[in-house]
Amino acid sequence: MNLAILGLGLIGGSLGLAVRATWPRAVVVGWDRDPASMTLALKRGAITAAVADPAAAVVGATVVVVATPVSAVETVFTAIAPHLARETVVSDVSSTKGQVMAWAARELQAGQPFVGGHPMAGSEKSGVAHARVNLFRGARYCLTPTPGCPPAALARLEDLAIAVGARPLILDAATHDAYVAAISHVPFVVSTALVRLTTGDPHWPDMQALAATGYRDITRLASGDPRMYADICATNAAAMAPLLRALADDLSTFADGLDAGISPESHFCEARGRREAWLVAQESFHIPN
Amino acid sequence: MNLAILGLGLIGGSLGLAVRATWPRAVVVGWDRDPASMTLALKRGAITAAVADPAAAVVGATVVVVATPVSAVETVFTAIAPHLARETVVSDVSSTKGQVMAWAARELQAGQPFVGGHPMAGSEKSGVAHARVNLFRGARYCLTPTPGCPPAALARLEDLAIAVGARPLILDAATHDAYVAAISHVPFVVSTALVRLTTGDPHWPDMQALAATGYRDITRLASGDPRMYADICATNAAAMAPLLRALADDLSTFADGLDAGISPESHFCEARGRREAWLVAQESFHIPN
Repeated sequence: MNLAILGLGLIGGSLGLAVRATWPRAVVVGWDRDPASMTLALKRGAITAAVADPAAAVVGATVVVVATPVSAVETVFTAIAPHLARETVVSDVSSTKGQVMAWAARELQAGQPFVGGHPMAGSEKSGVAHARVNLFRGARYCLTPTPGCPPAALARLEDLAIAVGARPLILDAATHDAYVAAISHVPFVVSTALVRLTTGDPHWPDMQALAATGYRDITRLASGDPRMYADICATNAAAMAPLLRALADDLSTFADGLDAGISPESHFCEARGRREAWLVAQESFHIPN
Repeated sequence: MNLAILGLGLIGGSLGLAVRATWPRAVVVGWDRDPASMTLALKRGAITAAVADPAAAVVGATVVVVATPVSAVETVFTAIAPHLARETVVSDVSSTKGQVMAWAARELQAGQPFVGGHPMAGSEKSGVAHARVNLFRGARYCLTPTPGCPPAALARLEDLAIAVGARPLILDAATHDAYVAAISHVPFVVSTALVRLTTGDPHWPDMQALAATGYRDITRLASGDPRMYADICATNAAAMAPLLRALADDLSTFADGLDAGISPESHFCEARGRREAWLVAQESFHIPN
């Protein structure tokens, strides 16, 4: 494996650490906009070599993973496109896939193998300083190949996902984006809305002493990286907006029911039952941590 | 301390265990509608004696804690009222206080000392089998005395709260109910609404494999006891409904912003900052577990 990682943050750094732990002889060339991140990635052993620009990093690579923030992905594609070997497989790690697939189709050479990637692992802490060799252990690693992608190229990304301890899941980009809107992006927005609702109350200074573990858990997502989630919103708005409206309608209807004195017990039973069923099912999916 | 606990579930049982651990010579008389719960409470040492009806339990008690589900509290008040000594302090453990205070005013003798209680601890598991001596350690224990409550009666409940390891907080019932609506009851409803939104999607069988720790945390409240939360809704609807509508409006407005391409980054930054400030502040409040 001759890997190039462009963007050495939490994800890029952890990928390098995990690949090198599994394949000690792998060449892992890294680049980051920030020289300090490259130095630290080298020092931590996340990469075997650092280079000064993305174009130089991809020379000789069998797999190139673009692990920058999503807002920089298009520029990196443009920069590396003329320097890629014909068989080099390009991937990324962005949380939404439709937009990235469109950039890849436009910026890379025709026929360049591209497999969108989304390792579903992360942390509230960012940067290569927090990279961990086991960040992806047990996590889903979504792969969204372009329609014409050669099976061998897809297999190379599957091997990479397995090598870092993750479980690859192949699906198309639109399906991926709809699913993560529901199970990840909308929950994040709801979490931030709850924080704003509560902390915006004039009585919050007194009220906050009563908030405990339930509040902490339901608002945990709101501590996520604002820039990353703003990028997600920019690239997945079409999937998120209808879900947010459906949720808003549901909450309004619920409030009407409260006013009318309708018992929500069956509603709550149903939610608990469905969540418990998911918890049982997810043991077979093996959620990490 | 001569304590009577009426209702031997998770809370009543844990109260007994904690009181007896701190005050080994305390008399703790227990009653429960279910004889098996009384037997188990005796066996576990949560009570020192079991009696066949609530009226018998309160004879000789200095403090009576009604720890039944909120829907049974009024009936228990009616049953015990004629049997209470003039100085016996009555309390409860319900999650909402306005309704309980009204029942106490109506059902108990005029002048009977009453201090509403809400120990802010719990578990997704219910029943005396799951009672724990340390359930209340570090938790807030809200106390809502009636306006004319003698200071000595309030002090007795404060002593009890401290004895079980909790930190008493005295406030009026309406304030309590407004605060817990915002930081607890509305978050619960939101959690159930998110579960219904996601699991109601026709693609849920495929989608669920992608739901991970973020989804698990934001939906954790939805595994709470449906009956208890239905009781909460029945007694705190007036505080909850406007908050649910405000949240629904916020989510709709957010969806409009997504459609308009407005970046939510500053919105997310604000939420993260406010949550981090709460996390720092709550270290001084010492949230348990």
